[in-house]
Amino acid sequence: MKLSSKNINDRADYVYDAIVVGGGAGGLSAAIYLARYGLKTLIVEKGKGRSFWMQELRNYVGVQATTPGRDIQKTGMDQALEWGADYLRGYVEEVIDEGDTFAVKVKVGKNDSIHPVLHSKYVIAASGIIDNLPQLDDMQNVFDYAGYTLHVCMICDGYDMWDQKAVLIAGNEGKMEAAFVLNWFTPYISVLTNGEFEVSDQMRHKLAEHGYPLYEAKIKRFLGEDHELSGVELEDGTVVEATTGLVNMGSQYHNDYLKGIADLEWDGENLVTDEWRQTTHPRIFAVGDLKKGLNQVSVAVADGTMAATKIWRTIRRAAPPRKWEEKVAELTAPIA
Amino acid sequence: MKLSSKNINDRADYVYDAIVVGGGAGGLSAAIYLARYGLKTLIVEKGKGRSFWMQELRNYVGVQATTPGRDIQKTGMDQALEWGADYLRGYVEEVIDEGDTFAVKVKVGKNDSIHPVLHSKYVIAASGIIDNLPQLDDMQNVFDYAGYTLHVCMICDGYDMWDQKAVLIAGNEGKMEAAFVLNWFTPYISVLTNGEFEVSDQMRHKLAEHGYPLYEAKIKRFLGEDHELSGVELEDGTVVEATTGLVNMGSQYHNDYLKGIADLEWDGENLVTDEWRQTTHPRIFAVGDLKKGLNQVSVAVADGTMAATKIWRTIRRAAPPRKWEEKVAELTAPIA
Repeated sequence: MKLSSKNINDRADYVYDAIVVGGGAGGLSAAIYLARYGLKTLIVEKGKGRSFWMQELRNYVGVQATTPGRDIQKTGMDQALEWGADYLRGYVEEVIDEGDTFAVKVKVGKNDSIHPVLHSKYVIAASGIIDNLPQLDDMQNVFDYAGYTLHVCMICDGYDMWDQKAVLIAGNEGKMEAAFVLNWFTPYISVLTNGEFEVSDQMRHKLAEHGYPLYEAKIKRFLGEDHELSGVELEDGTVVEATTGLVNMGSQYHNDYLKGIADLEWDGENLVTDEWRQTTHPRIFAVGDLKKGLNQVSVAVADGTMAATKIWRTIRRAAPPRKWEEKVAELTAPIA
Repeated sequence: MKLSSKNINDRADYVYDAIVVGGGAGGLSAAIYLARYGLKTLIVEKGKGRSFWMQELRNYVGVQATTPGRDIQKTGMDQALEWGADYLRGYVEEVIDEGDTFAVKVKVGKNDSIHPVLHSKYVIAASGIIDNLPQLDDMQNVFDYAGYTLHVCMICDGYDMWDQKAVLIAGNEGKMEAAFVLNWFTPYISVLTNGEFEVSDQMRHKLAEHGYPLYEAKIKRFLGEDHELSGVELEDGTVVEATTGLVNMGSQYHNDYLKGIADLEWDGENLVTDEWRQTTHPRIFAVGDLKKGLNQVSVAVADGTMAATKIWRTIRRAAPPRKWEEKVAELTAPIA
């Protein structure tokens, strides 16, 4: 059922089998499977994650290519609720390992927040990442294009940039290397540093050899209308013509709540997992963008399936077998 | 575009980047990604695969739980076509490794069949499995219940059997062990051999201890109406009461067309793959139920993503970089 500050006390003494942190594609898949395994499941979704910003999800089998990420989230939430999962809008502040269970501290509500502590045997970290965007005085100008013609995922949206004039907005010199992958989709690439870092002579030379101009002034604003980019105006007055763009400035990882847990192996900000998406802590799983691998909706959905199935298997194997009690006596009686 | 016997000659001299054998969830995902990477892609779908038979797909994020598998196939086909893949209804008879390319022999059309040979650099084996069902004189009686209340996948549909009287129809003694997993969902299990094999004393004892009656006569027919099972009538006149059932009789693997390929490592009828779903043959990938792992739509969809991405990466890295030609001279000119 849907939980909120109004009814969260109903769950005060409850021990969930699993709390899923994050209601994106991976978390929802985990919750749907957990609920269909008959396990007590809670999803905590803070809102406005990466899939919320997808304007059209074009590469996920069975869903029309005009479907926005938020529709997938809504349908997935309804699915999870239908099979019996709980769903809470809130922000997980901390997860504390109490031995057999976790205490999960959640902040619920923006104003007059409450801070319930919920308990579970397992935690699935499905809280993902959010892409860094250029920070302009007018962020609405960025949001007018980000997710439409200004992309953050080349694997997802490279196709939609085909042979267009494109800006690559890089967060550091390493991230400029994306130009030499993006050129599979289009060679008309202008590279922007947004004034944030110095560029080596070696990289300047490589860009020039490929014919990709480099612009090092800060971005003033994105130009265009109706989410259709036409160019980027820089603080020095230059206008870079472009009908599409790729922002490659790194990501924020929503993983602070796990930083107090011992035994977790990290690879940078990603959690290291095995084939079941089990971390090095046996009761914590990581799915989707928090684990190493391709950051794709399809991958996250499979991750959720795998994590939920391993949790079910472990709980099931430790449970006493359910017998058909009234038949046992009949079947085990010695033949007269 | 859609291909058929009418226009297949248009592709006679064509070399696809990849031919995907099978238009279920995994093959469609691979094709959607391949097409969006701009690669020349063909799906060959024989029809009536495992996902075709799913009456309701209840555990796939973003798709209403009443959606049948054939709708997913149709939407996925439209997606793949939209991004530029070719789609052919046909049966792949053989794949021959010609060194840099494969020759893929396809049978098209039931009557007056033609046998075109198509060529590709890569093959993705996505042709899956089909579940064995009890063979009755009247197979329509089986199809009236299979995929509705008579299930073939416990992970998918165990939830829908909760605390119901269930028959487990096993294909051999090893497959009777499913009773001791199915009992997570319901303890009211009657086990049927359909007269196909002998049962050991050890297994008889184990079933009796759990209170699961064993029936060893052949199945005469399934009872019920409107796809709702009410029982199973056996040839000896016994009627076993049950409102649901699980068929666990193994599967047919659609992999004959690969049996002539050297260098493929098999694990039984499954192909062994790495994390990219690449087999031990570097130009053959396997996704979905043909590879080892959970036979789930979500997993197959992620498999397709991974295989397509690895193929794209390999092709891309071998291709010359696309330069912005008119800018190269300008950017590489010495400063005057």
